Amino acid sequence: MNLPSKQLLEALERRYATKQFDPSRVIPAETWADLETSLILTPSSFGLQPWKFLIVNHPETREKLRAASWGQSQVTEASQLVVFAARTDLGDADVSAWIERIAEVQGSPIEGLQPLRNVIDGFIKPMTPESLYAWNARQVYIALGQLMTGAALLGLDTCPLEGMNPRAYDEILGLEGTGYATTVACAVGYRSEEDKYAKLPKVRFDAARLVERI
Amino acid sequence: MNLPSKQLLEALERRYATKQFDPSRVIPAETWADLETSLILTPSSFGLQPWKFLIVNHPETREKLRAASWGQSQVTEASQLVVFAARTDLGDADVSAWIERIAEVQGSPIEGLQPLRNVIDGFIKPMTPESLYAWNARQVYIALGQLMTGAALLGLDTCPLEGMNPRAYDEILGLEGTGYATTVACAVGYRSEEDKYAKLPKVRFDAARLVERI
Repeated sequence: MNLPSKQLLEALERRYATKQFDPSRVIPAETWADLETSLILTPSSFGLQPWKFLIVNHPETREKLRAASWGQSQVTEASQLVVFAARTDLGDADVSAWIERIAEVQGSPIEGLQPLRNVIDGFIKPMTPESLYAWNARQVYIALGQLMTGAALLGLDTCPLEGMNPRAYDEILGLEGTGYATTVACAVGYRSEEDKYAKLPKVRFDAARLVERI
Repeated sequence: MNLPSKQLLEALERRYATKQFDPSRVIPAETWADLETSLILTPSSFGLQPWKFLIVNHPETREKLRAASWGQSQVTEASQLVVFAARTDLGDADVSAWIERIAEVQGSPIEGLQPLRNVIDGFIKPMTPESLYAWNARQVYIALGQLMTGAALLGLDTCPLEGMNPRAYDEILGLEGTGYATTVACAVGYRSEEDKYAKLPKVRFDAARLVERI
């Protein structure tokens, strides 16, 4: 059954970058499990999924991350905290793993996937390590966008967190040397009734600035 | 009313990068207008909306873009084509425009927004033009993620398009010298019954590779 488009807009209108979460409200386990699945289902270029989603529940780790995030309360008070890490050195091994995975799930011979591998190689091989990481970091924002949209539709609140020290996050989360680096994070939970930002009118530029018809 | 989380997953399971669109099926005007509004509602860092959404309907322009996209048929055959352009030289004028817009919509005095302006300036000023553009390009992928998710929920099909020549797009779309550059595109419409990719099982890495609990 398709969602009525007005229901999508209502959810997006209600969504805002939540500053104050209600720490007493916990996302039901099944809802959260489904949101994790939605993260796994995020589309990515060639399907390479150049990311890790770190779900941080350990209270002391949350405290440390908060200290590395300008003390923002969302890091410790939201029901869930997702840290998005992007692949820093995507290469042959990743492409091989991906081709093997496709063959496994689709029950097709690996040889038949050589044309796909050639296309991926042709795209990746000319890239510098810096542009590869930048590309993977952009992919991560697809997951961030999908998570914020999905959560809003489920009646949950989110706050994307860019204002943090990603290298400190890497250290706290043990990501150093793993080939993944913190890119962005997102707190997910329920707004506090006291969050004054929830009551402010949503502001966007006029459509004339943002949309051009050709 | 909140969406049941299973309905979100069903939409994401059904979604795939559509290779073949049905050129005879047109997205109803009201549904498309709402999807455009959903683009406008996309969250961005500090709310700066460093983007333009170009909605390309002109058939000859679509043909030219297709030629700049490895001839991919989605560019001409999907009901709608969105080109996402990111701001290439975000600066003081953008921040001023944004602060003025907040004051206008929220009916608050501009002086009261000086602390916000200071935070934004503190974030932006140390950045090189290259990292500013990279940051804005990542924001654009939030919009891409939100569009693909929203469209899937409305029963529409999408194909994100990275395999194209963004500088050729800029030239065709008249973006050169405007302070915006093509970053990615997305075709939106209805799958053709003949698209063999629609029937392939969806492939993702095992959750153990993608999700880490801390």
